[in-house]
Amino acid sequence: MRGIGDDAAVVRARPVCVTSVDAMVDGVHFRLRDGWMTPAQVGWRAMAGALSDLAAMGADAGEAYLVVGMPPDFGEQSGLELARGAQALASETSTTIAGGDTVSAPVLTVSVTVVGWADTETELVGRDGAQVGDLVGVTGQLGGAGAGLAVLDARAGLGTGSSGARSDSGHVDAALERVRRPWPRLREGRALAAAGAHAMIDLSDGLATDAAHIARASGVRLEIDLGALPLETGLTEICVELELTPWQLAATAGEDYELCVCVAPADRARVEHALVQAGGVGVTWVGHVTEGAPGAALLKDGLEQQLQGFEHRW
Amino acid sequence: MRGIGDDAAVVRARPVCVTSVDAMVDGVHFRLRDGWMTPAQVGWRAMAGALSDLAAMGADAGEAYLVVGMPPDFGEQSGLELARGAQALASETSTTIAGGDTVSAPVLTVSVTVVGWADTETELVGRDGAQVGDLVGVTGQLGGAGAGLAVLDARAGLGTGSSGARSDSGHVDAALERVRRPWPRLREGRALAAAGAHAMIDLSDGLATDAAHIARASGVRLEIDLGALPLETGLTEICVELELTPWQLAATAGEDYELCVCVAPADRARVEHALVQAGGVGVTWVGHVTEGAPGAALLKDGLEQQLQGFEHRW
Repeated sequence: MRGIGDDAAVVRARPVCVTSVDAMVDGVHFRLRDGWMTPAQVGWRAMAGALSDLAAMGADAGEAYLVVGMPPDFGEQSGLELARGAQALASETSTTIAGGDTVSAPVLTVSVTVVGWADTETELVGRDGAQVGDLVGVTGQLGGAGAGLAVLDARAGLGTGSSGARSDSGHVDAALERVRRPWPRLREGRALAAAGAHAMIDLSDGLATDAAHIARASGVRLEIDLGALPLETGLTEICVELELTPWQLAATAGEDYELCVCVAPADRARVEHALVQAGGVGVTWVGHVTEGAPGAALLKDGLEQQLQGFEHRW
Repeated sequence: MRGIGDDAAVVRARPVCVTSVDAMVDGVHFRLRDGWMTPAQVGWRAMAGALSDLAAMGADAGEAYLVVGMPPDFGEQSGLELARGAQALASETSTTIAGGDTVSAPVLTVSVTVVGWADTETELVGRDGAQVGDLVGVTGQLGGAGAGLAVLDARAGLGTGSSGARSDSGHVDAALERVRRPWPRLREGRALAAAGAHAMIDLSDGLATDAAHIARASGVRLEIDLGALPLETGLTEICVELELTPWQLAATAGEDYELCVCVAPADRARVEHALVQAGGVGVTWVGHVTEGAPGAALLKDGLEQQLQGFEHRW
């Protein structure tokens, strides 16, 4: 509404405002050095992390505000590339970058605030609505980002495998792309919310952790069948090279930014149809909601597993 | 509306949404070491800087989102104190801290997003509405924060004076308080907007710089009478000790977070009355808007002055 140049951005509101902030720091959440990620990919990824929170609520993306802490050696050109990377994903998701701030900082720091909108609160989905008997689904495919991070570790001599460092298959490129250019599942989130989803969360920390968040918020138990997880194409092949277990990566590595959703069994067909209509990725049913101590149980062939979390250090 | 713990905060919106972000970095915008500022003061000041932008628009403060990048040695206790400092000002201004993010960072970094509200866009004031013939006013008193920064410089052996380091007068304490606990002029901003202000800006960079922002955005010239500036109580006394010129500090030092406003001469009495009604600080008329090359002219006894900006390095 008002032009750039005032003290604050002014936009016309819809009745319900949904806001999330997400910050990423070089060396903690990404790594610029050694070409692990370009400035444009950092901008894209920071924007994706924030928008993914709106996706998990079923909100429409509205505006984004970008704060960049720039180290002295980063350079104006890199700053512009970072902004262009953020703008690229903003354009793809009909998000308006409406403001921001640039400050000096010792290392590159990117903080994104996103504001989303809905017409009524009932359009939105939280973490606390899962009901006993619900199906648990995940969108898209899991483990790709974890595999990409493991490949980066292996190339740096930090990982468990060694040959991953030499792999140049298309699967590896795809896995790296999932780390560098994650997609927030906004259209899927809105479709799932509109189709009656009871609870949702985005998979930033990994299914094992994030399913437990839903479970505790809803006071239920989520049983996840590890054998049913939709594995990223080529994940098994990469995992052989890296000497990792695909299920472990898919359940614990995080950073995939897919959605985990709980829906009533009666809504299953409606939900699947809504996702097809939305033109995004589909859903795979990976478990169900039961009574019991709130938390997530990971099952393989019916037996509960204690998976060690995949640890990656940037 | 929805509780803490979801992926994003959900609030009921008013028709017009006003958003600003403001970031502060240790060593760049404040200094933790040597007791120059406590964690609680950092939290307060970061919140004040962001809220001041809403004040300059005439918006009602709504929600704030706090991102803290914490260095390893900062400690949980200091983090809590910082949050309490931000919360203290939020409470004073009826602002709800509705969300945030905490990340690891090499130095303390605080980024605050504030969301304000209005019922119509016409309630808000930008920088671009100043009209030839308008009076130029400033709220409160100027130069206090600049004097406080100069005292800190002198104490560190960096400033132009020396005895400021030894001063322990109440005036010095008051000046330091303006640096450490600035007040965003929210009630004054709303009152000025409601009384028909044409243009407003908050004085974060100093009147000389910020008046020029209004001038350029409005395509007019702002003539400021340096002799009319409302000097902070005791400023002249502190400046004698520091060997600085009070007008220079008041016009160029910034960080006072007062408002600069342009109003039609016919609205003068209405504006003054509105500020009294609002119960905040008053306004001092310090100049007027003329035709000419867009920019701010600083006049002393009718002659234009080229003031050297006060430079402070944290």
